[in-house]
Amino acid sequence: MLKTFYWKDGFFYLLDQRILPKKIVYRKHSSCRQVSCSIRAMVVRGAPAIGISAAYGLALAAQQAQKFCRSPNQVYAYLKKSALILKNSRPTAVNLQWAIDRQMKLAEDLVRQNIGIRDLARLILREAKMMHHQDRQINESIGRHGLKIFSRKKSVVLTHCNAGSLATSGYGTALGVIYSGFRNKKISLVYVDETRPYLQGLRLTSFELGYNKVPYKVIVDSLAGFLLSRRMVDIIVVGADRIAANGDVANKVGTYALSALAKVHRVPFYVAAPTSSIDLNIATGKDIVLEERAPEEVLEFFHQRIAPARARAYNLSFDITPAANISGIITEYGILKPPYKTSIARLSGNIYGKKSGLQ
Amino acid sequence: MLKTFYWKDGFFYLLDQRILPKKIVYRKHSSCRQVSCSIRAMVVRGAPAIGISAAYGLALAAQQAQKFCRSPNQVYAYLKKSALILKNSRPTAVNLQWAIDRQMKLAEDLVRQNIGIRDLARLILREAKMMHHQDRQINESIGRHGLKIFSRKKSVVLTHCNAGSLATSGYGTALGVIYSGFRNKKISLVYVDETRPYLQGLRLTSFELGYNKVPYKVIVDSLAGFLLSRRMVDIIVVGADRIAANGDVANKVGTYALSALAKVHRVPFYVAAPTSSIDLNIATGKDIVLEERAPEEVLEFFHQRIAPARARAYNLSFDITPAANISGIITEYGILKPPYKTSIARLSGNIYGKKSGLQ
Repeated sequence: MLKTFYWKDGFFYLLDQRILPKKIVYRKHSSCRQVSCSIRAMVVRGAPAIGISAAYGLALAAQQAQKFCRSPNQVYAYLKKSALILKNSRPTAVNLQWAIDRQMKLAEDLVRQNIGIRDLARLILREAKMMHHQDRQINESIGRHGLKIFSRKKSVVLTHCNAGSLATSGYGTALGVIYSGFRNKKISLVYVDETRPYLQGLRLTSFELGYNKVPYKVIVDSLAGFLLSRRMVDIIVVGADRIAANGDVANKVGTYALSALAKVHRVPFYVAAPTSSIDLNIATGKDIVLEERAPEEVLEFFHQRIAPARARAYNLSFDITPAANISGIITEYGILKPPYKTSIARLSGNIYGKKSGLQ
Repeated sequence: MLKTFYWKDGFFYLLDQRILPKKIVYRKHSSCRQVSCSIRAMVVRGAPAIGISAAYGLALAAQQAQKFCRSPNQVYAYLKKSALILKNSRPTAVNLQWAIDRQMKLAEDLVRQNIGIRDLARLILREAKMMHHQDRQINESIGRHGLKIFSRKKSVVLTHCNAGSLATSGYGTALGVIYSGFRNKKISLVYVDETRPYLQGLRLTSFELGYNKVPYKVIVDSLAGFLLSRRMVDIIVVGADRIAANGDVANKVGTYALSALAKVHRVPFYVAAPTSSIDLNIATGKDIVLEERAPEEVLEFFHQRIAPARARAYNLSFDITPAANISGIITEYGILKPPYKTSIARLSGNIYGKKSGLQ
């Protein structure tokens, strides 16, 4: 699989997903501000990948800080400013906040221990690399647990957007489930929603599935409902950008419609996401900030104007899928089932006791 | 309003809708085969516009036939061949068949009267021009009847694809209703589905609405469902390519999903179409042939490849909206209400008695 990002010789490299699958270009980042710009411009996208990129962004900030800071406290102050810049680059994905919080907590601990500023930078970078590695393992775990959603016969699966290796540190969440399903001979075909306006399905998911030899067909987003009505889809699996404590899910625009149509047609609708996408501070989906992006993303196409000159667009990038429309949430610890308020609370209690996977 | 097509000095001109709104180019047609190619390539689209274009196509055929035919019978044989070519250019729109049948019936009558071949060509052209004129009047009538769907307060309306002046001989069916609603101060905003893959909403409907100063916002198709869930849309109006005797409607892909989501959210869902779109030979939507077009329409963008090199797509251009999802069908004779089997049969009985509007 193509690397979504990597660290080399003091620089952070991001695969530019805006020009995939046409060209494979890695962009070099030497500052936290550059990483923030790349997140905003969607060089990198996908909730888990955004989180890890932010962690590396803070590693770059800690590295830069060495040049002009004299004390760990000064470094910490600089990191705090950098964290704020990063936080504002995309509002919907909770993993961004999660990764920043984890790095800042570590920094705080290290400063309290009065560690040297060089060691501080080294350990912040080590943490980013560890999160990177863990994310990959979490994805594989999601894929394993996801196997349970398939029946004995081969299924036709539908997915929306790209919750694949490119949206994560490798492997993928929704696509992780699809990869493991395919390897275990549970899948005959994947329908890929093209996912306007950014076409992550048409450009990225098709690219990944083709690369991994999974049979697929791209469809326009609005065909999915009709395929459901004709019983041409057995299971739907999508990713998540943020999950509220009650199981409401914020994800790429179109997810809501898909979930409502799945409910009408009694097709199982699964969300696959690491527990880092669960935000216990958010009670329900109504409290999630939904990003509205520039109208040009709809009105232009690769910087070529398609719509009339003065056309207007409403480009809401995400929507909310109510918990009631979701058959199960596939996490690295297993599949959460309704009522989600209870199952999420129970899982978070268990994790708090053992691991730091959940906020 | 821009002319969708016109006849001048023995040639038929079609506005090339594939390159709108970028350029306004009329393509000159001197043969029926050229018209058939243009219909197939979507230079012209929209059920009513396709029908009138076919009528002009036969006028061109009759004109050509004068050059090498010696008798009205020979002309008729040539027209019959031409009709077959035209018929196969797009399978879903019934208006195509309707227009061809009307011209062929006229030709048959004229041949029986042993008319001269020059007069035959003249009268076939006159009939095309009359159908052109009638279509415009029918549209305005649909617009007038459509006024009944609005409540006293101003509504937010959503439409899919382009059922506007460009899809007809001028004015439009679904957009006809929107134009008359707007002029009567019944509409505050129109949401325009961009309508992938051909973007008729983004390119054509926005162009028309902007031209006529109707406030609108383009959205990606998959956002519509979420707007419905947030009660941001009061009424949906779409066109139709073919209506079965039981009220099932074939229309641009995405119409089905929209209708199912409208039902879930109890938002009125109207179809606006001339009675020439009703096909009494088709009992239900299951019997309607749905056109599957080239995958390139999804995978490319203005002849620029967007998807990976070997990507596959399933490009079904139309879907079927079951009568049960439709609040009313707005025709030039009034609004048909469920049960459609009865209301359509009654209307067709009435028209048979008086006019030839229905097949």
